[in-house]
Amino acid sequence: MSETRRFESLWNDLHPVGRDGGSGGYRRFAWTREDATLREWFVGECAALGLDVTEDRAGNQWAWWGNPDDAPGEGVVTGSHLDSVPDGGAFDGPLGVVSSLLAVKALQEKGFAPRKPIGVVNFVDEEGARFGVACAGSRIITGALDADRARSLTDADGVTMAEAWQRAGRDPGTLGRDDETLARVGTFVELHVEQGRALIDLDDAPVAIGTDIWPHGRFRADLPGRADHAGTTALGNRDDALLKAAQFIEATRGAAASRDRSGEGGDRVVATVGKLDVVPGGINAIASHVTAWVDARGSREEDVRAVVGELEERARALGGSWRAESWTPTTPFDAGLVEQLDATLSGVPLLGTGAGHDAGILANHGVPTAMLFVRNPTGTSHSPEEFAETDDCVRGVEALVRVLEDLAG
Amino acid sequence: MSETRRFESLWNDLHPVGRDGGSGGYRRFAWTREDATLREWFVGECAALGLDVTEDRAGNQWAWWGNPDDAPGEGVVTGSHLDSVPDGGAFDGPLGVVSSLLAVKALQEKGFAPRKPIGVVNFVDEEGARFGVACAGSRIITGALDADRARSLTDADGVTMAEAWQRAGRDPGTLGRDDETLARVGTFVELHVEQGRALIDLDDAPVAIGTDIWPHGRFRADLPGRADHAGTTALGNRDDALLKAAQFIEATRGAAASRDRSGEGGDRVVATVGKLDVVPGGINAIASHVTAWVDARGSREEDVRAVVGELEERARALGGSWRAESWTPTTPFDAGLVEQLDATLSGVPLLGTGAGHDAGILANHGVPTAMLFVRNPTGTSHSPEEFAETDDCVRGVEALVRVLEDLAG
Repeated sequence: MSETRRFESLWNDLHPVGRDGGSGGYRRFAWTREDATLREWFVGECAALGLDVTEDRAGNQWAWWGNPDDAPGEGVVTGSHLDSVPDGGAFDGPLGVVSSLLAVKALQEKGFAPRKPIGVVNFVDEEGARFGVACAGSRIITGALDADRARSLTDADGVTMAEAWQRAGRDPGTLGRDDETLARVGTFVELHVEQGRALIDLDDAPVAIGTDIWPHGRFRADLPGRADHAGTTALGNRDDALLKAAQFIEATRGAAASRDRSGEGGDRVVATVGKLDVVPGGINAIASHVTAWVDARGSREEDVRAVVGELEERARALGGSWRAESWTPTTPFDAGLVEQLDATLSGVPLLGTGAGHDAGILANHGVPTAMLFVRNPTGTSHSPEEFAETDDCVRGVEALVRVLEDLAG
Repeated sequence: MSETRRFESLWNDLHPVGRDGGSGGYRRFAWTREDATLREWFVGECAALGLDVTEDRAGNQWAWWGNPDDAPGEGVVTGSHLDSVPDGGAFDGPLGVVSSLLAVKALQEKGFAPRKPIGVVNFVDEEGARFGVACAGSRIITGALDADRARSLTDADGVTMAEAWQRAGRDPGTLGRDDETLARVGTFVELHVEQGRALIDLDDAPVAIGTDIWPHGRFRADLPGRADHAGTTALGNRDDALLKAAQFIEATRGAAASRDRSGEGGDRVVATVGKLDVVPGGINAIASHVTAWVDARGSREEDVRAVVGELEERARALGGSWRAESWTPTTPFDAGLVEQLDATLSGVPLLGTGAGHDAGILANHGVPTAMLFVRNPTGTSHSPEEFAETDDCVRGVEALVRVLEDLAG
């Protein structure tokens, strides 16, 4: 079977799972029926490679080729996740899992004998679409997400993660940090679909190496107004919180645009308002309060901080308040590992990424980590339009094969 | 007891009912426990005046002084409503009901013998806060709201109006148009708190006569974007529906402001976005769709239509669609009745109003109708800040007494 046929065969298995017929997007949320189907599929495919799957204390699935306990801290791990955002694309996550399985298959077929154990991992709940915390699986085992807090997180229906575990036939009491599992991991390389247009405009760049995860913050601006009747209050007598929010949304784009140099090939900075809460939210009611959330990221911390500083000033000038909900500085991947991948795959572009990943959680925990990205011709992610050409996916698998040969050989 | 003490005594009865301790605003929604308390209070106060209360087929409460069936079509009716918007003020509605009761009391005490029957009405569900249709009580009895449609309206918890009736111990099968009740009404005068600043700047104008309800429309702009990851999508590659909505909200204010002449004492026009729906509404998701609702009103139809036309153009220029959800032309009150009130209360200002009222529904149904407005020193309505000085409220009662004497004497 050609590599292309082999990729398509494995890929097509996943096609129908959790697909919404209307949008064409995916709804694969942690600890749901769809998630269980995907987890069973993962166990089956590992079994076909002769690998047993074990689970850690967050429910992440690990398949080892070779015994990782024979060589503590030497395991060479690859993989990604199978869950999705609401109406997400097919590639964000699954491409890394499928590519890992195909890479192991290819190594087995060419008679490769790993000197270090090779692991394939399926991280659970990477998107945080159900319980609101991204990378929940990797955060739990590294202790970045406290076990009690994780158990008490609720979904939109008020179901806690602990209850979701019980419904999935699991014991939530076992959920928690898992140093034993992490002790097996010497290096982690996550392959992932590119989520922007960074590779599109380059000449023949189906694959790239990830160098770091950009600094990233989430902020909340609370903008006050005065409740008034929309029919009886003259324009000049209004204190309209939604009109302030409109100005703030435009200011958010403006603050990022004035510092973004990516159009000239320089550093990128982005800032987005994607969520608003309008109070009282009546058609005939002038808004008395609007909360606007800002997501800000960029390749350089100082640019992101400058944008955030300008927006805080703007929120305060509008009579509002400003609060950081989270701030993560640049997460550099392991410099030595990046250099080694660069040598192995010579000529491949190096990319920072604006998205969070389990790889970032492991890197912050001290695991030598890097990423591979596969070109996305739509430049769109978290959307049914997310895409990768099969030829590029096969090139990704080939790159992963070379990386694993090098790291485990 | 002085008129002031009498007003305060009756007014204070209502103070705690449905009051939110946090906001100081009211939550008095149709067919709830609070509503039942208010309805019982109304029956009790009418009984204290020697008046029995009957209900029509929408559940509106009518108390008659004199037998309206002895003089068909001659009844002189006053009253308003007791329900509120969420976190509404104390005066919008209750001021008219309380003033009506006090006016009847004053007429009885001075030995007035009505030649025509006098009615006091408490309209149910004027704000439409629970089931989404304003003036539901008057719309149902006039047939402006179809009985089947009314029964199937749902509240935020999915409870239909029919179910709400059942829970309140009523038979929703009886709900419907009620010509028998309306046949008793010869004129209707609704007293209401002023909802803007129209009386504040005038010299000694505690009371005004309502001449008409402004033309009023509700519109819906659907603005499309493209779902994308907020961290990985460069600014130049975005199609951000919320950024379009921000521009649209500012354009809404601008379109009204450019035509509004109320600052120079001329015609007023207002347009407001008070409700937005952002899809998907994730902090890290670029909005793929935003729906913005526009409420537009003004003293002249041509100004309102011009604003609406400009906004439709703007929505379409942003790639969006535009739909009228409702349009009500100017509702003039009865010219002869307004003239008669003007003669009775000589020197009182005449006002159009931007708010809808049961009086407008009855006027559209052909009932000779007018309104009285009581000065609101905050100029704010649908808010805990809504207010009227007790002295002004007493002046309102006195005006209503003179009007009823004139109309029923």
